[in-house]
Amino acid sequence: MQLTAGCHISFTATAPAPLILMLRPRSGFAQWVMKEEYLLQPQVPVVEYTDSYGNLCQRLIVPEGALAVSTTVQVETADHVDVQPGAPFVPIQHLPETALQFLLPSRYCQSDSLAELASEIVADSRPGYDQVDTIRQWIHSHIQYAYGASDVSTSAVETARHRVGVCRDFAHLGIALCRSLNIPARMVVGYLYQLEPMDLHAWFEAFVGDHWYVFDASQSELRGNRIAIAYGRDAADVALATQFGPITLTDMQVWVDAVAPQ
Amino acid sequence: MQLTAGCHISFTATAPAPLILMLRPRSGFAQWVMKEEYLLQPQVPVVEYTDSYGNLCQRLIVPEGALAVSTTVQVETADHVDVQPGAPFVPIQHLPETALQFLLPSRYCQSDSLAELASEIVADSRPGYDQVDTIRQWIHSHIQYAYGASDVSTSAVETARHRVGVCRDFAHLGIALCRSLNIPARMVVGYLYQLEPMDLHAWFEAFVGDHWYVFDASQSELRGNRIAIAYGRDAADVALATQFGPITLTDMQVWVDAVAPQ
Amino acid sequence: MQLTAGCHISFTATAPAPLILMLRPRSGFAQWVMKEEYLLQPQVPVVEYTDSYGNLCQRLIVPEGALAVSTTVQVETADHVDVQPGAPFVPIQHLPETALQFLLPSRYCQSDSLAELASEIVADSRPGYDQVDTIRQWIHSHIQYAYGASDVSTSAVETARHRVGVCRDFAHLGIALCRSLNIPARMVVGYLYQLEPMDLHAWFEAFVGDHWYVFDASQSELRGNRIAIAYGRDAADVALATQFGPITLTDMQVWVDAVAPQ
Amino acid sequence: MQLTAGCHISFTATAPAPLILMLRPRSGFAQWVMKEEYLLQPQVPVVEYTDSYGNLCQRLIVPEGALAVSTTVQVETADHVDVQPGAPFVPIQHLPETALQFLLPSRYCQSDSLAELASEIVADSRPGYDQVDTIRQWIHSHIQYAYGASDVSTSAVETARHRVGVCRDFAHLGIALCRSLNIPARMVVGYLYQLEPMDLHAWFEAFVGDHWYVFDASQSELRGNRIAIAYGRDAADVALATQFGPITLTDMQVWVDAVAPQ
Repeated sequence: MQLTAGCHISFTATAPAPLILMLRPRSGFAQWVMKEEYLLQPQVPVVEYTDSYGNLCQRLIVPEGALAVSTTVQVETADHVDVQPGAPFVPIQHLPETALQFLLPSRYCQSDSLAELASEIVADSRPGYDQVDTIRQWIHSHIQYAYGASDVSTSAVETARHRVGVCRDFAHLGIALCRSLNIPARMVVGYLYQLEPMDLHAWFEAFVGDHWYVFDASQSELRGNRIAIAYGRDAADVALATQFGPITLTDMQVWVDAVAPQ
Repeated sequence: MQLTAGCHISFTATAPAPLILMLRPRSGFAQWVMKEEYLLQPQVPVVEYTDSYGNLCQRLIVPEGALAVSTTVQVETADHVDVQPGAPFVPIQHLPETALQFLLPSRYCQSDSLAELASEIVADSRPGYDQVDTIRQWIHSHIQYAYGASDVSTSAVETARHRVGVCRDFAHLGIALCRSLNIPARMVVGYLYQLEPMDLHAWFEAFVGDHWYVFDASQSELRGNRIAIAYGRDAADVALATQFGPITLTDMQVWVDAVAPQ
Repeated sequence: MQLTAGCHISFTATAPAPLILMLRPRSGFAQWVMKEEYLLQPQVPVVEYTDSYGNLCQRLIVPEGALAVSTTVQVETADHVDVQPGAPFVPIQHLPETALQFLLPSRYCQSDSLAELASEIVADSRPGYDQVDTIRQWIHSHIQYAYGASDVSTSAVETARHRVGVCRDFAHLGIALCRSLNIPARMVVGYLYQLEPMDLHAWFEAFVGDHWYVFDASQSELRGNRIAIAYGRDAADVALATQFGPITLTDMQVWVDAVAPQ
Repeated sequence: MQLTAGCHISFTATAPAPLILMLRPRSGFAQWVMKEEYLLQPQVPVVEYTDSYGNLCQRLIVPEGALAVSTTVQVETADHVDVQPGAPFVPIQHLPETALQFLLPSRYCQSDSLAELASEIVADSRPGYDQVDTIRQWIHSHIQYAYGASDVSTSAVETARHRVGVCRDFAHLGIALCRSLNIPARMVVGYLYQLEPMDLHAWFEAFVGDHWYVFDASQSELRGNRIAIAYGRDAADVALATQFGPITLTDMQVWVDAVAPQ
């Protein structure tokens, strides 16, 4: 399905201050960026670079006053994500080198502290895809989706304890549990068609069988029509806006619409 | 100045065959991609990857029959390129690591065979920027710009001998002469506003002083309002379309227009 | 000074299990690896790869039974590390791209939770090198060096609270405090001549002025003659041995000696 | 078999001049570097970096006077290289991204000019491994191995014409012919046990089936016990010493010996 998606973010700054944005999706296996628009008002100088995960990052100075950032993409997406029950666990020695870093604990995914919980959850699952899917289901059933109970410092260990959070927390917990089973797992942020309520979304991917598979613990079923914007170890790596100074995000609107067939 | 630029390329294939395109400019220091459109007709699957120079490449299969590729970008460009007479030669030991590969000879820039000519040309120039600019002027004065006298196999050594070529040959010769003086030089392909006749263009950059400077031996004066699409050692690295099989490029149109201020 | 340093590690495994080692120092600005020895007993197959920080990693399977790993390096090191009081804070927009990832919070360095403490500590310091050095002194004065009070899951937030730890904890706290001031900081593990008691060591580097500077909060004064083995965001990235399965590290010996001038 | 190999190179310089060496083999799939020694006399400062192919490069200034470089490695090598008749041609769309650059023409391997010759040679071979092996045999039969008939500027096109050369020329021709058939091919320099006469050696690898296979057109049969030092597109990328200034290589000795089993 062709989607048009975008976000409009307003910042104010009481003094010029640096900002790093990560708002330009790249074309990849399941998504082809057909059209894109990335507007800044005022048009300040920007330098774009690629981080160590391959994400495109935009570095700029927010001027004193206001900055409006408006991005839109039109993307050909896959209606269904790849699902592969039975895809086997990949022994460490056969993992591609680039996947190995996603075995390590990270800021929000302290996999080194969650091995016991992970073992309990997957006790009856076959190693690999089925374990990850069991984790996804467990999170969906046992963690309450609620706003305001977690914040930007909340980590997987806390979510496992308090059993409440938002999509970001669900993803962190899923990632941490997978890694504690030696399954590489990474965070994805992006757009999801018909997300309710509409917002930017976070989910995760796990490497089993022979590639990365999508999992989304905050949804009752695994829907396609996603646009990935950035990949990383956890939310620390994929913040869509990282600000360094007296900057306030004053407004943010996100939309995802189907493009009517012509 | 804001430019809108694009190209429309038509391919036909007598059997399905692979094609690698390099038609998505990235935002960089002197160019900010505000809008972009990249359409394929029919919409075949594409995988985009980044090559070792950081260029975005699109890999696809041209189906039997026809494929139309249409890309448009709207870019904020610099009206003037950076010019720095007197910028010094950078001793090899102080060059950034990423520049070192641009000292080596390459397919079309056999710098190892052009040291004598380079020395003659720059005999009276100060090492660094001035040498490169002298090379640029020498090429502009001594090489005749003409279509049909060179082809895709023509290299800098041949251009130095036959003294005729097109923008690609001019760039190759400039690059080869710079490298033979131990000045890193690289090829750029892209769009140039008001190029006559309009087409995709090729120029080169040399690393002197503390960064890469633009040089264009095919133009009488160094104009700004350029959109770089790809960087590499020479034309072998930056072919906008590399085809592998029975594919014919049947039509190509290129345009660059100023966006009227609103 | 020329140093010879090495470690001998013994592993046992109750079943074949994967192991990733990071025990081959690379030559860099302040260290030149003149001789190196890396022996495995038995000689199992190993694949070496480079992680995203440039560290050389060795991937292998520990066979059922025992594996002895013995590495020795002879390295020309700098007697004094570079010290630069007054080196300025680098605004985010001027940092090299590769330093930006070291601003982010990580598993053991939750910089997002330590801003208040950092501000208190550096209240009277000039931004940049002096702030980092004040942090280093504060840690050295306020954190008790003791074994057994922390473990592999201990993070900077806990060390700030309990005020006790080992070199790894000291480094994590230093890194987290720097990052909370928007100063890039990274973990280093390696050898330090005349460390008491001898062991592998951990310290940190901060990017101020125009490069990375060494800081070591666990030592009363900043000594040279260090051999860096690996760099990363924190201990999660630079574990010298990461094991995946029923592997036990049964013995480890580390030595660093001066090579007598000849 | 365990090999000990090394080279001793003497340089003189009439003035201080930069030199880039590529003399530190890395551990890889078929080779494990157990011991290594890299000595400079006098001990000048060196900075080591990794080029875009993953080779370790050493950058230094040769002082006025003399510099002696002495490297030794002890390596566990494979007695036999991997041979796989029938391994299929890999369609471009299925090649790993990192292999794609090895399809392009390069300084010494003008594959764009040798398609006709390649087609003739492989007319009766199955696409893939068998084509490459036919090319290797053809070169071995049709190109005379002789010193002095080629030099550092000699390319594959010239070798195809003059039918004489050394191992480097044999490798270039093999690479160029493979690439003209859309088979990725790359240059390797290193040590070969029992090479006659002993010297540094050059061979090539081609990507067919599912990985890179070794081919050596200068040898009557494909022997193992090789130590790869560097990989690249052709000799321009893998020069073991690249000098920039008044440096003379005055002596070079190379040795490869079997380590007696203990």
